[in-house]
Amino acid sequence: MKIKYICVMISFTCDYNEGAHPAILERLAKTNFIQVPGYGEDSFSEDAKRLIRETIGRPEASVFFLVGGTQTNSTVIDAVIPHYGAVIAADTGHIAVHESGAVELSGHKVITLPSHNGKMDAGELRSYLETFYEDAAWPHMAHPDMVYISFPTEYGTIYSKAELSELKAVCRDYRMKFFIDGARLGYGLASPQADVTLKDIANLCDVFYIGGTKVGALCGEAVVFPSGDAPEHFFTIIKQHGALLAKGRLLGIQFQTLFTDGLYLEISRHAIEMAQRLKGIFASRGIPFYIDSPTNQQFPILTKEQMDALEGKALFEIWAKLPDGRYVTRFCTSWCTEAQQIDELDFLMSVRNPASA
Amino acid sequence: MKIKYICVMISFTCDYNEGAHPAILERLAKTNFIQVPGYGEDSFSEDAKRLIRETIGRPEASVFFLVGGTQTNSTVIDAVIPHYGAVIAADTGHIAVHESGAVELSGHKVITLPSHNGKMDAGELRSYLETFYEDAAWPHMAHPDMVYISFPTEYGTIYSKAELSELKAVCRDYRMKFFIDGARLGYGLASPQADVTLKDIANLCDVFYIGGTKVGALCGEAVVFPSGDAPEHFFTIIKQHGALLAKGRLLGIQFQTLFTDGLYLEISRHAIEMAQRLKGIFASRGIPFYIDSPTNQQFPILTKEQMDALEGKALFEIWAKLPDGRYVTRFCTSWCTEAQQIDELDFLMSVRNPASA
Amino acid sequence: MKIKYICVMISFTCDYNEGAHPAILERLAKTNFIQVPGYGEDSFSEDAKRLIRETIGRPEASVFFLVGGTQTNSTVIDAVIPHYGAVIAADTGHIAVHESGAVELSGHKVITLPSHNGKMDAGELRSYLETFYEDAAWPHMAHPDMVYISFPTEYGTIYSKAELSELKAVCRDYRMKFFIDGARLGYGLASPQADVTLKDIANLCDVFYIGGTKVGALCGEAVVFPSGDAPEHFFTIIKQHGALLAKGRLLGIQFQTLFTDGLYLEISRHAIEMAQRLKGIFASRGIPFYIDSPTNQQFPILTKEQMDALEGKALFEIWAKLPDGRYVTRFCTSWCTEAQQIDELDFLMSVRNPASA
Amino acid sequence: MKIKYICVMISFTCDYNEGAHPAILERLAKTNFIQVPGYGEDSFSEDAKRLIRETIGRPEASVFFLVGGTQTNSTVIDAVIPHYGAVIAADTGHIAVHESGAVELSGHKVITLPSHNGKMDAGELRSYLETFYEDAAWPHMAHPDMVYISFPTEYGTIYSKAELSELKAVCRDYRMKFFIDGARLGYGLASPQADVTLKDIANLCDVFYIGGTKVGALCGEAVVFPSGDAPEHFFTIIKQHGALLAKGRLLGIQFQTLFTDGLYLEISRHAIEMAQRLKGIFASRGIPFYIDSPTNQQFPILTKEQMDALEGKALFEIWAKLPDGRYVTRFCTSWCTEAQQIDELDFLMSVRNPASA
Repeated sequence: MKIKYICVMISFTCDYNEGAHPAILERLAKTNFIQVPGYGEDSFSEDAKRLIRETIGRPEASVFFLVGGTQTNSTVIDAVIPHYGAVIAADTGHIAVHESGAVELSGHKVITLPSHNGKMDAGELRSYLETFYEDAAWPHMAHPDMVYISFPTEYGTIYSKAELSELKAVCRDYRMKFFIDGARLGYGLASPQADVTLKDIANLCDVFYIGGTKVGALCGEAVVFPSGDAPEHFFTIIKQHGALLAKGRLLGIQFQTLFTDGLYLEISRHAIEMAQRLKGIFASRGIPFYIDSPTNQQFPILTKEQMDALEGKALFEIWAKLPDGRYVTRFCTSWCTEAQQIDELDFLMSVRNPASA
Repeated sequence: MKIKYICVMISFTCDYNEGAHPAILERLAKTNFIQVPGYGEDSFSEDAKRLIRETIGRPEASVFFLVGGTQTNSTVIDAVIPHYGAVIAADTGHIAVHESGAVELSGHKVITLPSHNGKMDAGELRSYLETFYEDAAWPHMAHPDMVYISFPTEYGTIYSKAELSELKAVCRDYRMKFFIDGARLGYGLASPQADVTLKDIANLCDVFYIGGTKVGALCGEAVVFPSGDAPEHFFTIIKQHGALLAKGRLLGIQFQTLFTDGLYLEISRHAIEMAQRLKGIFASRGIPFYIDSPTNQQFPILTKEQMDALEGKALFEIWAKLPDGRYVTRFCTSWCTEAQQIDELDFLMSVRNPASA
Repeated sequence: MKIKYICVMISFTCDYNEGAHPAILERLAKTNFIQVPGYGEDSFSEDAKRLIRETIGRPEASVFFLVGGTQTNSTVIDAVIPHYGAVIAADTGHIAVHESGAVELSGHKVITLPSHNGKMDAGELRSYLETFYEDAAWPHMAHPDMVYISFPTEYGTIYSKAELSELKAVCRDYRMKFFIDGARLGYGLASPQADVTLKDIANLCDVFYIGGTKVGALCGEAVVFPSGDAPEHFFTIIKQHGALLAKGRLLGIQFQTLFTDGLYLEISRHAIEMAQRLKGIFASRGIPFYIDSPTNQQFPILTKEQMDALEGKALFEIWAKLPDGRYVTRFCTSWCTEAQQIDELDFLMSVRNPASA
Repeated sequence: MKIKYICVMISFTCDYNEGAHPAILERLAKTNFIQVPGYGEDSFSEDAKRLIRETIGRPEASVFFLVGGTQTNSTVIDAVIPHYGAVIAADTGHIAVHESGAVELSGHKVITLPSHNGKMDAGELRSYLETFYEDAAWPHMAHPDMVYISFPTEYGTIYSKAELSELKAVCRDYRMKFFIDGARLGYGLASPQADVTLKDIANLCDVFYIGGTKVGALCGEAVVFPSGDAPEHFFTIIKQHGALLAKGRLLGIQFQTLFTDGLYLEISRHAIEMAQRLKGIFASRGIPFYIDSPTNQQFPILTKEQMDALEGKALFEIWAKLPDGRYVTRFCTSWCTEAQQIDELDFLMSVRNPASA
């Protein structure tokens, strides 16, 4: 057994350390020589769109496939709001922090509100907007036209149905669009804490996307306008943003696979089971969590010694150093985490690591 | 035999009608569960970069993998020239016509010069610049900082080494960057008319890319700065443009495959052989060509009757209707065109099509 | 007399060589210490807007004051069309040539059509659009959402009412906005060739502006949406584009002055009279014109010898050198050109210039 | 006397309620018919630049005249840093709050740090940058390339020489540009609390501007690159941003006037004297201040009753309502505030206002 630990480095750094779900690779291989048109006008993409529309119970929905998350965020935001419009996000939101200013590149300011474990508070949002419009100088400020949240958030937390409804109500009252970044949507929906379904998500926002990259695909995000009101010329906008994949089949085939026989939710649930198991390993040792995450990202607070025990054996991310010298870390599970990997981590934490001696 | 023609519709519409070269799919499957970091920092990508550097004989080169052509064009242009800079292209250039204004989206004007069968003339370029700087009002005009060409061009033609050298000289004289869009680079290099190699391309420009999407990959373009002078923070710029693939392995593995044992050029040569064979079919019938293309795109001028003969049997693109009622069409071969498909086309052109009767 | 010619250099280089109409300076001085709010919310601006609405006979019109032409063009275009939209202009149009890519800076492609003495042909525009939408690849191209013309054009020519109506009809048929750049509007309307009034202009387009900078003001352009349908939050858009003048009174007072007692048209007519007189000087000597301009810009074709005669005595612009060695030049008159200046030019052309000997 | 108060409403709402210093209007009138080239290439502008270079003791400095503050901020930022660059500002900074997202319009993120009475703390800036570069994910974030401060700040406060030096040191250590927005520069330099001169400002930053609009001009901001290292093609960039005034003489003449015989500082000192007098009126009544401002903006905290006393008599801005029901207000003095106006305000605060009864 020990030899194995020397050879293998298990990685929990993110939810895209591996390739794709085998069913996807199989279907790619099987369909490889079928000739289809490019740019998403292929039959695979059409079928994938139909499957998504059926799953969310919205036959009128418009569905588009883009390649990655940052690209999808900046394309959707630029398409949905006017060029002078600003978007409001939690200050921990992906668009506010980790997209190298992609939203600003197309001219839009990201206005930030305080994050509460990754979430935006609807009351604070309303209060911000009240204050905004009370200020006589508001026409001199960037105009808020959209609210952006991620589900689950960058901290693994999820919004309840009530919270989403409140955010939606504020958006309606202030004539703003409500956009949900679902890069990890499956992991949010599969959480035992979730009280919303994919149908609910579709009913509660103006536009959202179903993340493929982090949930079993090689790449791909499915943008959904539930009411079928995609911006005019959205195809052109996607192209303009460099987000139109020539071989759209690659995206169509993947989402076709993920939305056949409930695969998307099935593998999401698996990731959550693995996350619960992972959580148990830390909890059983009395290791506290920075955030009580109900999804596939876990944030245990480790001591230097505990981290050393994993040195050279297991990979994870360090998020922050606390004033007391401990570290906030992030461990991710995914659709392809195996129970055995969690067990190995458990074993590693039990022994002193010779590598760090 | 005849039954087959009823079932199968052969497509020559573009060079991305199929998936990927089987060797790519195999390697994707084989490496699927190997855990690697994201964002192109994986070992596959590192290896692919090494292979490309070796192939072009430039150990100092910087190599980056992006997903698609339009994305690569707009990201590279925005990264290499200042925000106020303009780029000069032939008026048939991809960035000038078929990218929905992606270059303009990041603020850059595309200045167009007349196309000569898809190519820019170095003499005309020099003349344009002379006139530009002679005009006292030039500081009121968009400032030309880059020349963009595609090799091969959108019309299938290729530049000779002498022509590329002349363009390079003009760029040097006017302190402009020289950028070669190689979305179909393999098909250009494999052309019997080509007098340049991949090494020459690397020596003759400031930045170019090796197209994967159209030459055997599912997606992917390899951007090369031959002298290793990639713009500072180019990684951040790629991310900002929504062009950073989370699972960079998908690109690394593909280019690793394409640049192992000369596969890229081998499959490119095959496409060219098929194109020659295709050309023969038209030539043998006395069908003229709109452009004498030495690469994988062929532009026969067909009569309505000749087009009808293929109705429902073979797909191709219509580029333009001529005043005399005939049509300029485009037939593409690719890495996976089979000789049999060409033969079938030959057969189809020999018989009257009952479908169009 | 001769001594005077040594001392004075008369300039015909442009229509903004001097300051402002004295009535403007007087009113600025008289109102100088009246305290008013900033940002165009002052009573002078309100009054100026009222005067413009009355002059065009459109009480419902929205009027905004911006500072300069390029700024106005890029702000209006970005405000009126979606971020992905392109604007069609003659290839000699100001936005296409002499604005350093300002329109592209906010993301919009400028599509150019051939210029006919500075004008766009409605038939060619329609034909371009027909071809555009016939091309199956149009969603991959920048989407035309606006037509931009200048009245008078950069070559001094003007559109007839019939021509404007035809352009408007094409815009309506293809759901595009029709925008008229009136940087020299007064000089167009005052031309004897003009068959349109300011009211007609207002009726024939979606948005236009009345140029102040070139017609008697220190600066300032009055943007008019005749139907009162200014883009939502246009004030914010103006600010976002850096085009909101803090002391809006400066613009309000100037347009108030120009639109009191018909001053704007009166001084425009004076410039045209001077232009006719100027034209006569060249015509009487058999000097041909590059373009037969009915407005304040004249384009005589001069020999080297004729140009030498003016060396050091009179200033004008050189537009182009003809293959036969002669030069296309531009002489502008303006609201403040004096008959005596024209007479001096006449005299200068009669004598051999010792300065160039 | 009483009648006068009924007629006149004194405004302290901002420092641009009036026109221009009379010396400016006089010089505009006197030079009105002198013919000069446009676009800032006139002799007045040349002379104004010389005067500014002399005043700051930097013969090598590059000077440019733009029209307004927001325009200057967005043009300078976009010119000086690369397109992917972000700018760091205090969260109360003008570019962060009151420019409608103008900086983002040209693609740049504004990163905010906490404001301390309008000022950025050099220690916090350094700490932010240390943390930024310690985070392994920084290449995924917008890259900080500039620090922006205003002098005086939006809250009337000013930086000491030591504070500016520290900010400069951080910028140098992290290879960032240091940009000072001097929209109210004169009022900062004239403050008795100031320990810097205009020469010091020039020595302590990479680029700054001398505000004209708020300090006696009709419009105009003088951008100074003290070391003469203006961005290449800055003229073109100004034009591209719609910030090039055709009749540049308007700016040249104004700055020529302001920098002749020390007028700029003289009128700034007057404004500060008036501000001290204004401060005294509030202080003598025991009215507290929200911020202890040493410049021309004063922020007394008034009760509803105190505000009512001024209703219909004196204008000022309301900045915020405090939880206890009182209001933070802003009263500005300027180059043209008269002692009598302050006395009137004093009188108004002494009597019960019949208008608000």
